[in-house]
Amino acid sequence: MIGSNTIRLVLNTYSYTRKVFYHARPRQVNDTVSKLLSSKEEKSVNKNVDEDAKTILKIPRGTRDYHPQQMKIREDVFRNIIDSFKQHGATTIDTPVMELTTLLREKYGEDSKLIYELKQHENEDLLALRYDLTVPFARYISQNKISAMKRYHIGKVYRLDSPKMTRGRYREFYQCDFDIAGVYDSMIPDAECVKILVEILDKLAVGQYRVSINHRKLLDAIFTVCGVPAKNFRSLSSTIDKLDKIPWEVARNEMINERGLSPEITDKIWSYVQLHGNVELIDRLRKDPQLISEKLAVEALHDLELLFRYLKLFNVTDKVVFDLKLARGLDYYTGVIFEAVLTEYQYNPQLDDDQIAIGSIAGGGRYDELVQKIDPKQRRVPCVGISIGVERISAIKEHQSLESKDQLKILSTEVYVASAEKHLLEERMKVCNFLWENGFQTEMAYRQNPKLLDQLQYCEKYHIELCIIIGNTELNNGTVKIRHVNTREEFVIPREQLVEQLRLHLSKIRQR
Amino acid sequence: MIGSNTIRLVLNTYSYTRKVFYHARPRQVNDTVSKLLSSKEEKSVNKNVDEDAKTILKIPRGTRDYHPQQMKIREDVFRNIIDSFKQHGATTIDTPVMELTTLLREKYGEDSKLIYELKQHENEDLLALRYDLTVPFARYISQNKISAMKRYHIGKVYRLDSPKMTRGRYREFYQCDFDIAGVYDSMIPDAECVKILVEILDKLAVGQYRVSINHRKLLDAIFTVCGVPAKNFRSLSSTIDKLDKIPWEVARNEMINERGLSPEITDKIWSYVQLHGNVELIDRLRKDPQLISEKLAVEALHDLELLFRYLKLFNVTDKVVFDLKLARGLDYYTGVIFEAVLTEYQYNPQLDDDQIAIGSIAGGGRYDELVQKIDPKQRRVPCVGISIGVERISAIKEHQSLESKDQLKILSTEVYVASAEKHLLEERMKVCNFLWENGFQTEMAYRQNPKLLDQLQYCEKYHIELCIIIGNTELNNGTVKIRHVNTREEFVIPREQLVEQLRLHLSKIRQR
Repeated sequence: MIGSNTIRLVLNTYSYTRKVFYHARPRQVNDTVSKLLSSKEEKSVNKNVDEDAKTILKIPRGTRDYHPQQMKIREDVFRNIIDSFKQHGATTIDTPVMELTTLLREKYGEDSKLIYELKQHENEDLLALRYDLTVPFARYISQNKISAMKRYHIGKVYRLDSPKMTRGRYREFYQCDFDIAGVYDSMIPDAECVKILVEILDKLAVGQYRVSINHRKLLDAIFTVCGVPAKNFRSLSSTIDKLDKIPWEVARNEMINERGLSPEITDKIWSYVQLHGNVELIDRLRKDPQLISEKLAVEALHDLELLFRYLKLFNVTDKVVFDLKLARGLDYYTGVIFEAVLTEYQYNPQLDDDQIAIGSIAGGGRYDELVQKIDPKQRRVPCVGISIGVERISAIKEHQSLESKDQLKILSTEVYVASAEKHLLEERMKVCNFLWENGFQTEMAYRQNPKLLDQLQYCEKYHIELCIIIGNTELNNGTVKIRHVNTREEFVIPREQLVEQLRLHLSKIRQR
Repeated sequence: MIGSNTIRLVLNTYSYTRKVFYHARPRQVNDTVSKLLSSKEEKSVNKNVDEDAKTILKIPRGTRDYHPQQMKIREDVFRNIIDSFKQHGATTIDTPVMELTTLLREKYGEDSKLIYELKQHENEDLLALRYDLTVPFARYISQNKISAMKRYHIGKVYRLDSPKMTRGRYREFYQCDFDIAGVYDSMIPDAECVKILVEILDKLAVGQYRVSINHRKLLDAIFTVCGVPAKNFRSLSSTIDKLDKIPWEVARNEMINERGLSPEITDKIWSYVQLHGNVELIDRLRKDPQLISEKLAVEALHDLELLFRYLKLFNVTDKVVFDLKLARGLDYYTGVIFEAVLTEYQYNPQLDDDQIAIGSIAGGGRYDELVQKIDPKQRRVPCVGISIGVERISAIKEHQSLESKDQLKILSTEVYVASAEKHLLEERMKVCNFLWENGFQTEMAYRQNPKLLDQLQYCEKYHIELCIIIGNTELNNGTVKIRHVNTREEFVIPREQLVEQLRLHLSKIRQR
């Protein structure tokens, strides 16, 4: 029997937004579950157990090494994202990986238990590893007395998720945040955040997606209208937030049995949160006399109307949905919230890709009170920001790369210096040095007398474009042989033309 | 009175190699000491104490935030370094910031006490923050059963230095390592490491420097010849390693009183370690019958002869010194060791730059036994590598930037979209969107009706090259005004020519 914990394991297999949609067909779900179950018996990839030795080499549970192939893909993802942030005028900062535990406490609601603490030392503050980049940003803004800033920050964050959840959900992972802090006119920075989100997802070509938009004040107004006590608002948001991965009946039971709401209240909530659509939904809600009697609802609808107007000018309305069940997990949001969700994904049972099921790949929103809450003088600096799910996106790009016929070129090396005969090490070194000094990406074998075949195989394995071959004939004639690794064509050229000929051959190869 | 601790504080003001040369004149040392003493009374920059509030905002002792200006400089430094590593065919990896405490134990000699441990959780391994990138690399090589790899790794490392030492010496800092692992012919990868070091330091233009070279086996042979017991070799290395910042007499006393060596042995050691020179010193040492009777000395001199020969082919011998007092602090080196040291630095008492006194800015060496020591099957993977002191180098570049007349451009923004009149927000948005979609780095004010002066001042402050100004006249005429921010020249152009005209104006400005 497949227990409900296993199902949840499948449903919650990624670390980024703690929110995964699973639209695969039932048979595929079963396949994945079987795979998960059987994999429990396999030796974990993070362990290297040697029965003969006493040493067991492993890395901390829930962490992983990134290999060169993965790093190559991640570098491309990061570069694309950073280019967009910079295009919109952002600078970057860096903050320590650890913060004072007092700063992190009471900022993450139920998730506070997931914070990694350090062992305390005498006369030292109690320290913890950061849980996200948002609270450190608020601390940075406050401590440096900044009143306006547009910054991005890419860094690792730490969450001590329970071991059960660890598969595919990491305890150490990258976040990639862009935030605009400062007192500005309504919805202008918010609209730019959504614009940037769309630009990045389009550029990265992660597949079809939609950006859901909602407003915390609208949710609060709805809860009020439905008769929910104010103290239940945030915990109720957590239940609402799950509505895209659990059926309404399950959520309804949780509201009644765990949150203590009456069936009538619950059903009234449902009549609202199931609504979604475009800008016209704003007008429809304005015709709801009960809702519109709430000041928060009026404010939220005004914000949303403005936001949709700006999004139209930014040419992104086709990507955007006004979705009343979007709630976002974190406590600190105070206004507009958004979340990008993949809507199409081809499941491939050949690959161990359960961790890239359809789901949320970016999110964000307005948090106007976080800096104030931290600031010693309660100075108010409103903020809005987005967080790109780089781990998720990198996993998708890895998957795309595996499926693609194009080989991933990991090494930058463009010219390899080989010798065809023995005793030519120093000649190879001279040529290498000459090429390095002329700016070429160049390598050679670290051997006195490498075999020509080994040298050529290295070039083919790593997709190095050109190979220079020197032998005694070439040395005596003052020539060099240039070989196109891919086509295996060879050209003998005068040694003094080496630099210009290499440039010529490289540009020819790259034009193909 | 200035106590010896204060002097040590001045002498040890940087975190990177725990080794600082201080060649400033005595008066300058005194100036720095006075400055350090008086600064103790100043409010620390890392604290934001508000007397009225109960909250004190601070970051962990020994850590710091990096601001946008600093990040801009660091990005340039990292890019230059990474370009060199890639030019030599390196890939990159990433490993977790934490490792199992068992891995880190007994790897760093006396420094093991500087390791940050995490609070242990039930059923979880004891974890610690990494102390360097070398032990994690050895763990990576072993765990992934790799036999050959050329990789670079840039990441933060953690050392719980005593608070006294904290000023200018950080507990969290970046390391930037390049290593070649694998069984290769003698000294070929070692020579490339020195070559890369020289390339990077030349490219970064950090000032005059030399690369000292020595060999651990030669040091061990010298100790043997002088009659030092083998168990004292590594601790004696630590004393020798300090010889460029403490006078011989002080080191001599330490050897006699703390290490228990006789004055005769000590003086004989001095007769060797004071030697330095170029490749000819190898021949001189070969004429020392006592030394040459030691197998280790013969091996070391053979290695060094080969290395100097390769370095000549790589055209770097003018940067290199064979220096018998170079010992390097870490236990794991087994062969050639090297260290780059700045030899010229203009002290500027106007700047708070005591942390960039002359000193070591990069180092490395061969460590052939570390992987074997870690590997469950004692698999041997010899390694050689370099570590670039990026914190140190970034501090020097910051200093150069402050002294330079050229303004540092922090924002990438090249075109700012401004309005001269009210009610033009949506027009600005449309133009911005058009420019973003055409690839321009573009910003606008997040205000309904910003003042033109404020918009122009923003452009000047952040060195944005061009400002587009739209007003009702321009809108009616189908034109746009382009303003060169620096010269304040203005050009009115037809709106449909916007993209090509902007490209033209930008390329003109950049050619100046």
